[in-house]
Amino acid sequence: MQTISLRTPYLIFVGDESRKNYVKTGAGLVDWRPELCVGQFRLTADTADLGLPDMSIAEAVEAGVGSLVIGTAAVGGEMPAHWQTSLAAAAAAGLDIVAGLHSHLGDSAELAAAAANGGARLVDVRVPPAKLPVGSGKKRGGLRLLTVGTDCALGKKYTALQLEKDMRAAGMNADFRASGQTGIMIAGEGIALDAVVSDFLTGAAELLSPDNSPAHWDVIEGQGGLFHPAYAPVSHGLLLGSQPDAFIVCHEAGREHISGWEHYRVPSIGEVISGTIRTGSLTNPDIRCAGISVNTSTLPASERAAYLRELAARYDLPCVDPLIDGTGAIVDYLRQLHG
Amino acid sequence: MQTISLRTPYLIFVGDESRKNYVKTGAGLVDWRPELCVGQFRLTADTADLGLPDMSIAEAVEAGVGSLVIGTAAVGGEMPAHWQTSLAAAAAAGLDIVAGLHSHLGDSAELAAAAANGGARLVDVRVPPAKLPVGSGKKRGGLRLLTVGTDCALGKKYTALQLEKDMRAAGMNADFRASGQTGIMIAGEGIALDAVVSDFLTGAAELLSPDNSPAHWDVIEGQGGLFHPAYAPVSHGLLLGSQPDAFIVCHEAGREHISGWEHYRVPSIGEVISGTIRTGSLTNPDIRCAGISVNTSTLPASERAAYLRELAARYDLPCVDPLIDGTGAIVDYLRQLHG
Repeated sequence: MQTISLRTPYLIFVGDESRKNYVKTGAGLVDWRPELCVGQFRLTADTADLGLPDMSIAEAVEAGVGSLVIGTAAVGGEMPAHWQTSLAAAAAAGLDIVAGLHSHLGDSAELAAAAANGGARLVDVRVPPAKLPVGSGKKRGGLRLLTVGTDCALGKKYTALQLEKDMRAAGMNADFRASGQTGIMIAGEGIALDAVVSDFLTGAAELLSPDNSPAHWDVIEGQGGLFHPAYAPVSHGLLLGSQPDAFIVCHEAGREHISGWEHYRVPSIGEVISGTIRTGSLTNPDIRCAGISVNTSTLPASERAAYLRELAARYDLPCVDPLIDGTGAIVDYLRQLHG
Repeated sequence: MQTISLRTPYLIFVGDESRKNYVKTGAGLVDWRPELCVGQFRLTADTADLGLPDMSIAEAVEAGVGSLVIGTAAVGGEMPAHWQTSLAAAAAAGLDIVAGLHSHLGDSAELAAAAANGGARLVDVRVPPAKLPVGSGKKRGGLRLLTVGTDCALGKKYTALQLEKDMRAAGMNADFRASGQTGIMIAGEGIALDAVVSDFLTGAAELLSPDNSPAHWDVIEGQGGLFHPAYAPVSHGLLLGSQPDAFIVCHEAGREHISGWEHYRVPSIGEVISGTIRTGSLTNPDIRCAGISVNTSTLPASERAAYLRELAARYDLPCVDPLIDGTGAIVDYLRQLHG
């Protein structure tokens, strides 16, 4: 029983995608794991450039690449048919093909045959590992931090990655733990929790942050929101299985309604703090909030500092915009709490 | 998009299971839906007797049976190999085969071929329908009641079925809605919620109790427990999607630890009431507790009435043992609340 695990390093496949906005997965990999990204594979001259060396399949094999990672988010999650030839060539050459698309890589007979010939794996990171356990509720060694949110898509993954970076810079032993598809590509392992069968949700969440040494921090990527009308159960399971000692509330300044569920209001940061403590204390009675992480990009630049100061005073917690300030203030607070 | 739907009436397959304790599914069908059970199919003379007429496959076809339902709970959830011939004969004769086993009916080539020839379906009631929606959080017409619990396996299905019976006897328009495998066989439709992929849990729960007329009651079978260290997310999703106006807390007198998770204590009935209201009010702000249903079989008979009286006084709610008292007191209270 284990999480998905990817073979590194990566060749990032950009196809012929020219729109910067659609190559976020690849750009995220380059941002957060430059050491894992040895090259990019582009079909045309005007394909978006991730700033990596252009490489052929043969050059990637020569460079010791383990996986070709599809770094684009195609419309509707489907893969353009004309990419098949390149992907099949990579698989036939022995590179694992890694994707987070809604269509399954193995549905392509051409690709399946090439992978079989090349001894390569076709890895859909949205597909959970088989035979997941049921949650045990038993305490594991080590320290854990979970990013939670007032809604979806407001910086839970970014905050966790920045925390890992800043904690490591401060000399702490910290590992980002991925619970979603892009996070899994960045971490090279993890489980897409929203794709797990409900009965095994807490068990899968327990697998994400296994037993560890006492001073080690798992920095766990959150999902959904505990007050989300559709996805709250995913957040609940991740919270119970993570057994976090600390959590960070992520928020977007000015967001008032749940994105896509406009008939629901975004809960206050205070509601998320008390709800997370109430729910999380079942599996870890010592759970506490250790900071607030806000995307302030919707505010005029002149108002951002005052907004964060006001929040910090109201909740008596470090409060940062991780894109502007990093998460150093939160890291300092964690060191204070867990010496 | 719809729930699983079974063809009625049923021929109950008992195989050669002689242990009364292992034919509970079949016995439950006979108890709660006698009008759907036209016969039983037994392989030997000492097979457990459900009190139905013994029937051959040919007689069942003649009697208009729609499905052969496997009424046993085999050890490990696997089907004994020597049952295959009888099941294949039924499928070849056009009867749907319905099972709640862990192994899939379609994994048997013999059975799959027979079903194809006979135009019959192989229905694993634990397998959710394809293409489930994401929860909308939108209010639907009609009234809804959900049974919740301090733990698993303490009477949530039984209480819901007894409520349906007593509400109908009182002239109310009520339908039991099934969220687990035995419930689905009894209701003839439903979704095994614990087998649904997490992202679609609230959406599946919404499907279970569709829009209805204003005075209609859906009486929804609960799952798990909101304070269960492994299954709480399932309960959370069912609660959000059900949007219940009323809920009944089910409990077993004297149970102190979560069954199978003995390191967790069973929450108090008061904790379950306040937790359910807090969580459920997201999708229905009018949610309230309408009663307590206790399995008192663990108490000496002389103490049961006093135990229930004490609980009723403490929570100011009707409090019944449904096996002894029925649920009439709760039905009266519902009529008071929802006139």
